[in-house]
Amino acid sequence: MKPTLTFWFEFASTYSYLTAMRIDSVAEPHGIDVVWRPILLGPIFAAQGWRTSPFNIYSAKGANMWRDLQRRCDARGLPLTRPEPFPQNSLRAARVALAALETNFGHHYCRQVFIAEFQHGKDISEPETIGEALSAAGLSPDLLSAADDVSRKAELKARGEEAKAYGLYGAPSFTVGEELFWGDDRLEDALAWAMRGKASFGNRD
Amino acid sequence: MKPTLTFWFEFASTYSYLTAMRIDSVAEPHGIDVVWRPILLGPIFAAQGWRTSPFNIYSAKGANMWRDLQRRCDARGLPLTRPEPFPQNSLRAARVALAALETNFGHHYCRQVFIAEFQHGKDISEPETIGEALSAAGLSPDLLSAADDVSRKAELKARGEEAKAYGLYGAPSFTVGEELFWGDDRLEDALAWAMRGKASFGNRD
Repeated sequence: MKPTLTFWFEFASTYSYLTAMRIDSVAEPHGIDVVWRPILLGPIFAAQGWRTSPFNIYSAKGANMWRDLQRRCDARGLPLTRPEPFPQNSLRAARVALAALETNFGHHYCRQVFIAEFQHGKDISEPETIGEALSAAGLSPDLLSAADDVSRKAELKARGEEAKAYGLYGAPSFTVGEELFWGDDRLEDALAWAMRGKASFGNRD
Repeated sequence: MKPTLTFWFEFASTYSYLTAMRIDSVAEPHGIDVVWRPILLGPIFAAQGWRTSPFNIYSAKGANMWRDLQRRCDARGLPLTRPEPFPQNSLRAARVALAALETNFGHHYCRQVFIAEFQHGKDISEPETIGEALSAAGLSPDLLSAADDVSRKAELKARGEEAKAYGLYGAPSFTVGEELFWGDDRLEDALAWAMRGKASFGNRD
């Protein structure tokens, strides 16, 4: 049984960008399956009384987030363009991701969305941006129609409810079984937790 | 010129406990001077509209913080007892720290306060707890009087204003020159930044 980690992310989230760009290459050598789960933070933030990103509400926190993000991008060799507006409307990107993630190219599509947004400063609410991301990932632009698909709308809502049930309150987050980890800084801990599960399976052999 | 890093902490802060227990041993091999600066987060949180810790206000965030803290303490071999009430009133501990930090035993006193609070579950607002921490650090219990010293009260307020001027919004935080880093997770980045300064001094030789 392969160890599995679920990666919960929001396309508008700055630290989700950092994780999306590294999670596959970090997880693969350990033989860990990573399940990508796009969610919308809007409803989760609304439940905490926030109508926008806490980085906009709390200005000192927001200012240091952008500085921290720039330092981390510099250290990892990642370009960074600050998207305007921030946060972006990620509804279309997320619904299309649900369809894309049923193919073998879903992770690539998701990374292409993050690259468009945080490297090229493109508006990810635009169908053109999402179409280009699909195309760059080797997927058909027909998947764009998922954005207006009633069943995808329902699926995305259900994923959000599932995330809340895990106690998720921000992105990126990781779950391994019931164990919840928050933030790009906890990716290594989450991977180690997943491996621990593998070790205990091994012990039962 | 020795590289210097300023460590801003709040005695009631869970992640400040994690940092206080490791910062000296991590910084010393690099020859970095660490300046310890106790502050009160209360006024800083109040400026953000919070009347208590955000971990109490946002329950999902708070629940995962305690879980994360337990995992980190387990990994570092640190005992953890959840203080009641949380957050503790750290006014006395902080004012006394200002006096203790003018001696060679200040860091030890601060660690003893964190140990009393987060390992033994003691109330750090009590003079007995603070007296024991002074004594365990090899300091005179006479320093307890700093808690009622008008000049120490003013000094602690001034430190808080200084912290705000750096854009500080939580603890622990680190500053190297004007550069601000937030959270125990950024200690290594802050140390590397301090070393970078040292390297550039070296280049000018």
